[in-house]
Amino acid sequence: MSRPLFVTFEGPEGGGKSTQIRLLAQYLISHGHSVHTTRQPGGEPVGIELRRIMLDIGRDNVIPRAELLMMMADRSQSVESVIRPHLDSGGIVLCDRYIDSSVAYQGAGRGIDRSWIGALNNYATAGLTPDLTILLDIDPEIGLGRQLELTKMELMDLNFHHRVRDAFLSLAVQYPKRIKTVDGSLPIATVQGRIQAIVEQELTSC
Amino acid sequence: MSRPLFVTFEGPEGGGKSTQIRLLAQYLISHGHSVHTTRQPGGEPVGIELRRIMLDIGRDNVIPRAELLMMMADRSQSVESVIRPHLDSGGIVLCDRYIDSSVAYQGAGRGIDRSWIGALNNYATAGLTPDLTILLDIDPEIGLGRQLELTKMELMDLNFHHRVRDAFLSLAVQYPKRIKTVDGSLPIATVQGRIQAIVEQELTSC
Repeated sequence: MSRPLFVTFEGPEGGGKSTQIRLLAQYLISHGHSVHTTRQPGGEPVGIELRRIMLDIGRDNVIPRAELLMMMADRSQSVESVIRPHLDSGGIVLCDRYIDSSVAYQGAGRGIDRSWIGALNNYATAGLTPDLTILLDIDPEIGLGRQLELTKMELMDLNFHHRVRDAFLSLAVQYPKRIKTVDGSLPIATVQGRIQAIVEQELTSC
Repeated sequence: MSRPLFVTFEGPEGGGKSTQIRLLAQYLISHGHSVHTTRQPGGEPVGIELRRIMLDIGRDNVIPRAELLMMMADRSQSVESVIRPHLDSGGIVLCDRYIDSSVAYQGAGRGIDRSWIGALNNYATAGLTPDLTILLDIDPEIGLGRQLELTKMELMDLNFHHRVRDAFLSLAVQYPKRIKTVDGSLPIATVQGRIQAIVEQELTSC
């Protein structure tokens, strides 16, 4: 029952991505699938170092252009050394943030040109688009309130986070076949049930 | 006698860039100029970390696309936080490697598309082109023999280094007004004398 499937999770902070990915991985593994979970940035050794620069060492000092380029460096490394190999061996990859986060955060959030972000995404991924994207939508005021420890990105103004959310919702309208929106403010089990239904449909549709 | 001047030093390994930059800085300072020396990658804190990933932690593991994007992240950070501020205050900036090294190493060396490198260079530098580039040309077989401790990049095959050298020489033909070639195999003092003459001419020409 193994077939390669690349699922990404996107959305504002506090939408429950990491919890839902963990639960989905358990569910899929219990159903006999080979599953690998990863995240961007920081899904493998080189990316962990890049993430550390962006969120820790370079905090408040990394300029937006450099941040975008480091995100893309992480993405290219992650695709080639982690995601592609798992898909090639017929597994399912669940990835916490991917191309849409760059459009939302660096594009809508920081005002970097979208077509340039698209060109960088295409280069960094060597054209690897997710089969399915789960958008865990949540109002930033609710989502940020859920976070115990706020990181650099979460500390920016609320206006920024509203632009990011709107960008994610626009992407879902733009790519309705790939991006499925789930209300992240619902109870964890309810959200997980909806995600499992979407993934099962994708697994049986091919 | 202060005016902003941005001078980059390029060329194959072992051409004597660091020695010549140090001597030129001493000369210019002794003549009353405000001089800042830097290098790419690794000219400021964020770049030092990126350089560490590329040459140390990620050694043999960083894929070419990620390496190029990290080089560009370093460049954007260096331009905005170090080079631009020094030029804006009327100083002279001497930079060890810049846009031409990406064309030579990642382009001719690793085979990444040149027009894409050009687009990334333009984005990373926000269009900041050097006023003057000193190409310290040297045969790779002589240049590599000079290095006591060979880094990752220097350990690659000689064929790679010949492609890199040829690319630098082609760039000098393409941009004769900006790029001045000096024979790096000549005695240190002779090379320095030629560099000083070129820089003095540039300083008095405007």
